[in-house]
Amino acid sequence: MAERTEISTLGEFGLIEHLTRNIELQNASSILGVGDDAAIIDHFGKQTVITTDLLLEGVHFDLAYTPLKHLGYKAVVVNISDIYAMNAIPTQITVSMGMSNRFSVEALEELYEGIFAACRKYEVDLVGGDTSSSQKGLIISVTAIGEVSPDKYVRRSTAKKGDLICCSGDLGAAYLGLVFLEREKRIFLESPQVKPDLEGEKYVIGRLLKPEARKDIIEFFGDAELVPTAMMDISDGLSSEILHICKQSGLGCVLYEEKIPIAEDTRSAAFKFELDPTACALSGGEDYELLFTVAQPDHEKLVLNEQISILGYLGEAEKGKKIITKGGNTFDITAQGWNAFEQT
Amino acid sequence: MAERTEISTLGEFGLIEHLTRNIELQNASSILGVGDDAAIIDHFGKQTVITTDLLLEGVHFDLAYTPLKHLGYKAVVVNISDIYAMNAIPTQITVSMGMSNRFSVEALEELYEGIFAACRKYEVDLVGGDTSSSQKGLIISVTAIGEVSPDKYVRRSTAKKGDLICCSGDLGAAYLGLVFLEREKRIFLESPQVKPDLEGEKYVIGRLLKPEARKDIIEFFGDAELVPTAMMDISDGLSSEILHICKQSGLGCVLYEEKIPIAEDTRSAAFKFELDPTACALSGGEDYELLFTVAQPDHEKLVLNEQISILGYLGEAEKGKKIITKGGNTFDITAQGWNAFEQT
Repeated sequence: MAERTEISTLGEFGLIEHLTRNIELQNASSILGVGDDAAIIDHFGKQTVITTDLLLEGVHFDLAYTPLKHLGYKAVVVNISDIYAMNAIPTQITVSMGMSNRFSVEALEELYEGIFAACRKYEVDLVGGDTSSSQKGLIISVTAIGEVSPDKYVRRSTAKKGDLICCSGDLGAAYLGLVFLEREKRIFLESPQVKPDLEGEKYVIGRLLKPEARKDIIEFFGDAELVPTAMMDISDGLSSEILHICKQSGLGCVLYEEKIPIAEDTRSAAFKFELDPTACALSGGEDYELLFTVAQPDHEKLVLNEQISILGYLGEAEKGKKIITKGGNTFDITAQGWNAFEQT
Repeated sequence: MAERTEISTLGEFGLIEHLTRNIELQNASSILGVGDDAAIIDHFGKQTVITTDLLLEGVHFDLAYTPLKHLGYKAVVVNISDIYAMNAIPTQITVSMGMSNRFSVEALEELYEGIFAACRKYEVDLVGGDTSSSQKGLIISVTAIGEVSPDKYVRRSTAKKGDLICCSGDLGAAYLGLVFLEREKRIFLESPQVKPDLEGEKYVIGRLLKPEARKDIIEFFGDAELVPTAMMDISDGLSSEILHICKQSGLGCVLYEEKIPIAEDTRSAAFKFELDPTACALSGGEDYELLFTVAQPDHEKLVLNEQISILGYLGEAEKGKKIITKGGNTFDITAQGWNAFEQT
């Protein structure tokens, strides 16, 4: 009998690693392949950055509480975020879509309104795609393309010992938005007459349904003549992402819990749901902030931007990946980001 | 009440046109957007060509008779075919995949074996992608990237009156392969003990399950210093594709039935299934041959390549799009290619 290994034994990242382990790039123009936020392709001096994301109904979004316009917007933003995570400027996208005949033309127009709104906001062109019927549900596959000079792109694997670990904005909100909307959905299904009260949770819901990519941070790097030593975007939660940078750069790290930026609205939502806001920031995901590392001499450039927090530093791999809590205890950082293949 | 327009009222091409009708390209590097086989992006002298295709289980393939390795190969080839259809050379691909936990790691390895086999054959690099679980079925989204010099790329809209209409290889086989496998599937479901006899249909089955992209034709154009005036690949059937070229170039056409290249194996399969081989070539699709137009003075260059057939010529739009049968009758060409949104 043929062997059968469940995908869940490898996990999403393990699976990609496993399937792509034997790739040898053949084209001289393929500068950087699988294993980062995006790939890099050389084009005579300028380099092209390319990334792609697949969004599936029931896995990545729930149309019970996701307006189609927001969904279109988000599908573009999450890809643009990957382009910024290479320190590159997004320029074009392609959008492929599969939808069942449950969707009307008007519904798709709404979705495209969101797509075009994101295109305008981030100044990218929709240049192609593919549209198909599906047997069930909505499938959106976006590919984003960007440009970067060869000396500017930033990988995950190039952090150095002693570098400062930084992130933009604040973390944990999108996860609490999800917790809130999932609860409202359950309540609605049980008692349709109860009107949801979204007022208090506007911030966390907005962070989930309409995330933005950190164009301003990339522009700041340009203006400040600062090139991070490593960078990625935070789509799976801070823990998972810092472990990626540590693994790919062959380093360990120390994070300080008190330095993790969490918005007041996020803290109060966490309190209401009896969740630990730090755990939401570490494991929540979908914040689409940038996690990056900078050399210590660049520290003074960072303080000019109040959207940037310094969370800790990179150390030797042997010393492990640690977080020091507010109470002074030290714990290992473990990846508890959303694992798409976890069996439930 | 909100309006509801069914997608089926627009059809696939109508839907794409409708949703993308207001696009204005903002980036100077966006040379060519939606509406051709691929988009063109300028990169300082060389141009990047990009195309994307979404393949859905139950819509584009049936795993009952599609080996996973072949599926992986085909998913790459159909995208590479779009790059060749721009007269460009493919260089990189990204692959995104969604799969339910019905698939094992070994199954995905098979799929990737096919993907890598196509990468080797066509000398392209797999540089990125995204892997996700799905609630149901297998979803494959491939994006292919290629290069072309700005004076070499070939659109659909640039054919001229009097140009010759040509195609590579032979047509109609893939559709008969599908008819055959669908019949075998029905027989198997009714009487599992009956062994299928694939021997006589090897050619048509091979054309469906393991199509090739016409790299040789693009190389021939280079060697012969021939640039077609318009080109696209034949994925939806000859009728549908020639109508695209006529519409986008603002022309009419005359095709001669007797000139449509159909392989002997295709004819005998058609005979067996009581199908008209010409109808299979016109409406069948999935042949992934190249349909192109050339200026009449280039005629002598074409005769050097026996893989190229001349099917007819382009005329004024007012004269319509006609096919002249072997019996000398004239009919309008109508698009009966697979319409993914047709209600069944």
